[in-house]
Amino acid sequence: MGLQPVLINGTWRQDNAPEGSFRATNPATRQFLPDEYPVSALAEIELAIEAAHVAMAELRLLEPDVIARFLDLYADNIEARREELVELANLETALPKEPRLNSVELPRTTNQLRQAASAVRDRSWRHATIDTKTNIRSIYMPLDGPVAVFGPNNFPFAFNSVAGGDFAAAIAAGNPVIAKANPSHPGTTRMLAEAAFEAVIAAGLPRAMVQMLYRVSGENGLKLVSHSRLGATGFTGSRRAGMQLKDAADRACKPIYLEMSSINPVFVLPGALEERAEAVAAELITSCLMGAGQFCTNPGLVVLLDDDEGRAFMSRVASGLSEAPVGVLLGERGPGHIREAIGQMKEEGAEIVVGGDVADTPGYGFHNTLLKVSGDTFLQHPDAMQTEAFGTVSLFVLAKDEEQMVAIANSLDGNLTGTIYSHTGGADDALYDLLEPALAPRVGRLLNDKVPTGVTVSPGMVHGGPPPSTGHPGFTAVGIPNSLVRFAALRCYDNVRLHRLPNELRNENPTGKMWRSMDGQWTTDSV
Amino acid sequence: MGLQPVLINGTWRQDNAPEGSFRATNPATRQFLPDEYPVSALAEIELAIEAAHVAMAELRLLEPDVIARFLDLYADNIEARREELVELANLETALPKEPRLNSVELPRTTNQLRQAASAVRDRSWRHATIDTKTNIRSIYMPLDGPVAVFGPNNFPFAFNSVAGGDFAAAIAAGNPVIAKANPSHPGTTRMLAEAAFEAVIAAGLPRAMVQMLYRVSGENGLKLVSHSRLGATGFTGSRRAGMQLKDAADRACKPIYLEMSSINPVFVLPGALEERAEAVAAELITSCLMGAGQFCTNPGLVVLLDDDEGRAFMSRVASGLSEAPVGVLLGERGPGHIREAIGQMKEEGAEIVVGGDVADTPGYGFHNTLLKVSGDTFLQHPDAMQTEAFGTVSLFVLAKDEEQMVAIANSLDGNLTGTIYSHTGGADDALYDLLEPALAPRVGRLLNDKVPTGVTVSPGMVHGGPPPSTGHPGFTAVGIPNSLVRFAALRCYDNVRLHRLPNELRNENPTGKMWRSMDGQWTTDSV
Repeated sequence: MGLQPVLINGTWRQDNAPEGSFRATNPATRQFLPDEYPVSALAEIELAIEAAHVAMAELRLLEPDVIARFLDLYADNIEARREELVELANLETALPKEPRLNSVELPRTTNQLRQAASAVRDRSWRHATIDTKTNIRSIYMPLDGPVAVFGPNNFPFAFNSVAGGDFAAAIAAGNPVIAKANPSHPGTTRMLAEAAFEAVIAAGLPRAMVQMLYRVSGENGLKLVSHSRLGATGFTGSRRAGMQLKDAADRACKPIYLEMSSINPVFVLPGALEERAEAVAAELITSCLMGAGQFCTNPGLVVLLDDDEGRAFMSRVASGLSEAPVGVLLGERGPGHIREAIGQMKEEGAEIVVGGDVADTPGYGFHNTLLKVSGDTFLQHPDAMQTEAFGTVSLFVLAKDEEQMVAIANSLDGNLTGTIYSHTGGADDALYDLLEPALAPRVGRLLNDKVPTGVTVSPGMVHGGPPPSTGHPGFTAVGIPNSLVRFAALRCYDNVRLHRLPNELRNENPTGKMWRSMDGQWTTDSV
Repeated sequence: MGLQPVLINGTWRQDNAPEGSFRATNPATRQFLPDEYPVSALAEIELAIEAAHVAMAELRLLEPDVIARFLDLYADNIEARREELVELANLETALPKEPRLNSVELPRTTNQLRQAASAVRDRSWRHATIDTKTNIRSIYMPLDGPVAVFGPNNFPFAFNSVAGGDFAAAIAAGNPVIAKANPSHPGTTRMLAEAAFEAVIAAGLPRAMVQMLYRVSGENGLKLVSHSRLGATGFTGSRRAGMQLKDAADRACKPIYLEMSSINPVFVLPGALEERAEAVAAELITSCLMGAGQFCTNPGLVVLLDDDEGRAFMSRVASGLSEAPVGVLLGERGPGHIREAIGQMKEEGAEIVVGGDVADTPGYGFHNTLLKVSGDTFLQHPDAMQTEAFGTVSLFVLAKDEEQMVAIANSLDGNLTGTIYSHTGGADDALYDLLEPALAPRVGRLLNDKVPTGVTVSPGMVHGGPPPSTGHPGFTAVGIPNSLVRFAALRCYDNVRLHRLPNELRNENPTGKMWRSMDGQWTTDSV
């Protein structure tokens, strides 16, 4: 059987000269899946980049609504293939078909594409700014090159490089995308790319607006993100890979947006335990187990007081985790990585409460794990204690007093989220007021009384945060329209004759509804 | 005489243990000025960073209007010291007192500070986003550490590290600033810092909101921008220094915003020459000579057709430049740098039309220079031909036809600005339509029929552009409020109890006038 085709320059075709090939594995059985995929060489990457530039030139002649039509048609196509997509994604990731793949992640993905379509039609995200007195006008425009998207292993649909949040944002901002599949689910990515390409044709978009490769060598990945003709990169994945790509992109002055590692600290204040320990424990257990713990917002660190209530709460969560079935991890290297991460915490004094070992299961597995450590020990080794273990692993930190809880918050690295559970009647408010100023600047999203898993796609969402959770604290990867600006250039037109301006900057409001900032005020009026 | 004091941790005091000292030079006489300034060591930098963190904690307890009051008072203080500031800046930079320092740059500086004050009061720049159904809310917040500002040599007031655009933006966004003076005008910077510090006290801002050092070693500059407790850096200066700082900051995942080098291409289309060659030449000559050519928006590259009109236009500009007096360059190294840059162009085939030599003047000087090159030769060596010569030096490219003009545009690096002069009656429109798609993505600001020097401080302005003009194409260094977001973190509040939210995200509109994006629509209403 030959290699699966790549999508380059508007055609599904065999890779010209693959550097190698690979197959995906079913994580539930540890067996190879039948299809074989090429590892593409630099020449294919460069072809894709050049083809994208041609697409950019073609796109300039089209109305922006073509992009919106594409996004909507693509969402329809995904729904039309729902069954086969769910089937294949389940084989490649072992994520449950129900509710996860079919009823949660797939609708989230199509919803995201449709929200992106709305943002394209609405145009307000482009932040058109018009100074009427000076005739200086500015607006977000597409980048001067395509966007490379690297998808993670843990969301085969919603963060897929050819269907997920970065894809939708980059396309909606008017850029061609070169998708680099996550090699753990190449078949799902191929199927999505087929659905996308059909929508490209049906909508009348330039054929090379969407291109897809399955895998490239590490070295060629660095060449892709630093290529002089690339616009930017969106990456979701490990801290190690992300930082390598960032280094290469930074040296080339190429924007790169990373969503990397996060342990998502959860502070459970004494009043919340007194009031509703059982309910909080139940929520937390569910959150820890979601996706076998392989969520970027998985609560990996729980901080509470070392008193009877705190210890009882920890025991309750420990029991819940040990009673729950062992989830299937996404890849062969999962169990080893978790063991290594736990090893770093243990070496500095964390102790296993439950779990801690690789599971002897048909699929890749690791026993649900809870570790504990004293606040003193945590503060002696804050770096090691913040090692991300990508699975159902949580470190409980038992602080000797409230002051130490605050000190722990102050020792934290950047995270996507930070959560504080507190008494609903206000009994914890004094502690909250000390804790919040320490925690809030270290997280992209601060939650109250709610687990961090579950990232709503809505305008106010921030899926971002200080490094190492991302590479820059000023952006979000989820939430439309704010995620679009990552893939845009801010451009100004100074004294440019009115008929030469982009439609969105001309005197007449192009839709009658687009929000523009005119002389410092937002308005939908025309000039 | 002792060393001049530094401003650290809310006190003017002697540097604790300077690594060395330096004096500034009067560029008009090449003589040292009397005052001596310390080169500060790493320990002083670290003290400043820690003091800034204390200021951040104090600032959280204050109303945002304190910052606005500071900015307004500071502008008043600058005006009250107008005469001595202009006197000293003239001594240190040789820039003319009139109109430049007194009637142009100083008012621009105070205007910018007052616009920043308005933005603080208005709060709309914070892009408050409220999703009422999900109670997810997000907003730009200050960074988790102070902003280091490195000012350039060419604008002692308007881009000064303790008074200019980056300073105003960083402070208005709620961050303490650690200003690193440009060593070519340390006295001006000290005087501004005194005016700033008096305003800090009078406004009731935390004393360490504004700190100032005169100079640090290159090595310590890298440590400053990559310090784990720093928020971000704003840098205006040379490409070489900027790229070194960027490399250090990037590795530490610290945001850095750079405004580096730009040759600001000007395309003069045949219809414009036919219609108004004399007027365009006069504008261009004035623009080339501004600040002895030491403007970041100085037109260093002029592209036109190699025909009778094009050559006549070039001769006219050459005459104008050679008849104009030789300006005084800002520093000792200026003439050598210009000679070196011109040497690179000559080596690849550019020819001197006028100028080309160091000037034998009392001050640092270089003869006003115009070089020419054929379009063919330019396209063979586009990199060398785009060498920035920081002075009155312009390379005229004589293109053999219109197609070659477009090819030249396509060969350009990123620039702050790009200008097209064209026939007012539309005779050049066909060429414009080919040229614009090539030029526009390569510049931050596209101009029609207007020289690029003169950067209006207004909301629509973009003083940015693709690398190497800056480090990232999505931001602007000038233009309030858009320049503020560089120094802000995007933070989200998910299910946070209403009374715990920042004022700007609570249900009631805090000013009644602040623009907030609510459920996708901009509004000044309360929830």
